[in-house]
Amino acid sequence: MLKLVLIRHGESVWNKENKFTGWTNVPLNEKGVQEAQDAGKLLKEKGFDFKVAYTSYLNRAIKTLWIILEEMDMMWIPVYKHWRLNEKHYGNLQGLNKAEMAEKFGDEQVLMWRRSYDTPPPEIPENDERHPKYDPRYAGLKPEEIPATEALKDTEKRIVPYWKSDISKSLREHGEILVAAHGNSLRGIVKYLKDMGEDEILKFNIPTGIPYVFEFDDNMNLQKDYFIGDPEEIKKLMDKVANQAKKK
Amino acid sequence: MLKLVLIRHGESVWNKENKFTGWTNVPLNEKGVQEAQDAGKLLKEKGFDFKVAYTSYLNRAIKTLWIILEEMDMMWIPVYKHWRLNEKHYGNLQGLNKAEMAEKFGDEQVLMWRRSYDTPPPEIPENDERHPKYDPRYAGLKPEEIPATEALKDTEKRIVPYWKSDISKSLREHGEILVAAHGNSLRGIVKYLKDMGEDEILKFNIPTGIPYVFEFDDNMNLQKDYFIGDPEEIKKLMDKVANQAKKK
Repeated sequence: MLKLVLIRHGESVWNKENKFTGWTNVPLNEKGVQEAQDAGKLLKEKGFDFKVAYTSYLNRAIKTLWIILEEMDMMWIPVYKHWRLNEKHYGNLQGLNKAEMAEKFGDEQVLMWRRSYDTPPPEIPENDERHPKYDPRYAGLKPEEIPATEALKDTEKRIVPYWKSDISKSLREHGEILVAAHGNSLRGIVKYLKDMGEDEILKFNIPTGIPYVFEFDDNMNLQKDYFIGDPEEIKKLMDKVANQAKKK
Repeated sequence: MLKLVLIRHGESVWNKENKFTGWTNVPLNEKGVQEAQDAGKLLKEKGFDFKVAYTSYLNRAIKTLWIILEEMDMMWIPVYKHWRLNEKHYGNLQGLNKAEMAEKFGDEQVLMWRRSYDTPPPEIPENDERHPKYDPRYAGLKPEEIPATEALKDTEKRIVPYWKSDISKSLREHGEILVAAHGNSLRGIVKYLKDMGEDEILKFNIPTGIPYVFEFDDNMNLQKDYFIGDPEEIKKLMDKVANQAKKK
């Protein structure tokens, strides 16, 4: 039995302020740190024994992973970081308040930008200092790999190759691995693993800080997938994510 | 110009209690966390631009590295952990108070165990749960690689191959790298790099939390080495380490 655990980073400063974050590096807030600690305690209690872990290039996911590994006394295991696990790039919306955007453009447009499978938000301009090409994290990428905006389709398109080339091989080799990442980058993986339709993934909300377990047989056939924790609490958290883009 | 920065982890709970730590996993104390934060701020201020970092399998070194990377906004860079960077194994002395040992065996014997180049402390028994063979960190090692005690000579012997196979190659490739480790594992590297004699390394005390810079030309010829920080403060810290094993 192979076990993959996905975890979405806890609340960040901008989650709380209801801003589009994307590739912006904002730290976890106090609640986000607590969520990661709780997840680490829960995973330890359930006896998970991760051999390696994966995360993105973004501080809030890395910090979430570090806190979990510290709680589990697994700080020493290998950690691989990759830009392909980054959150969906929100283009020129990064830094803007979700509710303000909803007021201005309407719920529907914002929901489309957030959740449409193939309509990306407006691009971040080339000369804007927020453009990822000015960030040392992405200095090693080919120009065509650096996004100025992304639809979920684009995020999925860059994640699936990394799943195939690295994460899935690692899972087969090591048996038990952890991936700490973001709402939409994890959606990309979940859609692929569960062979979901575009509508289905659009409505699928991954709660923050709740370990999401996928069990595979030795031939990598998915056997079952489930969240760990109190079902009512999980339902509440999923609804909360779904309601973030609604008007105040 | 190639730049290697060595840093010894900050104060741990057992440093403060004056106990032999070795391979025991004790956390940093509050001062140790502060030391790591200060080191990170200093390295950032001096404009260091690390491309990769190395650390041991022991929590206090990993945590020191994580804090430094967080201060420098470099959490995303690759981090390689290896048991060969672990502290010297203190055998059956691990967990015992240094001053108590000095009372019992005399300053000279304890200083020899701590600082002799080739006399190891008594071995930790095979059936003792503190033996590293019971720790999942070392499950992948060959039996003959797992120490039950070490003299500095043994520590050096396991570090130099890793320096040659990994760290030095990485330094040539990336130009600027950071190694967060331990008093005696760093001594092993320093002795090798500076071609020090056994007596010389015995008296060379690396202060905690002070970045120690080695500059090499492109052919890896050492040009100079220096600590960063206030010289008087550094002198005080070095003396403090040297005096730890004296009687109370």
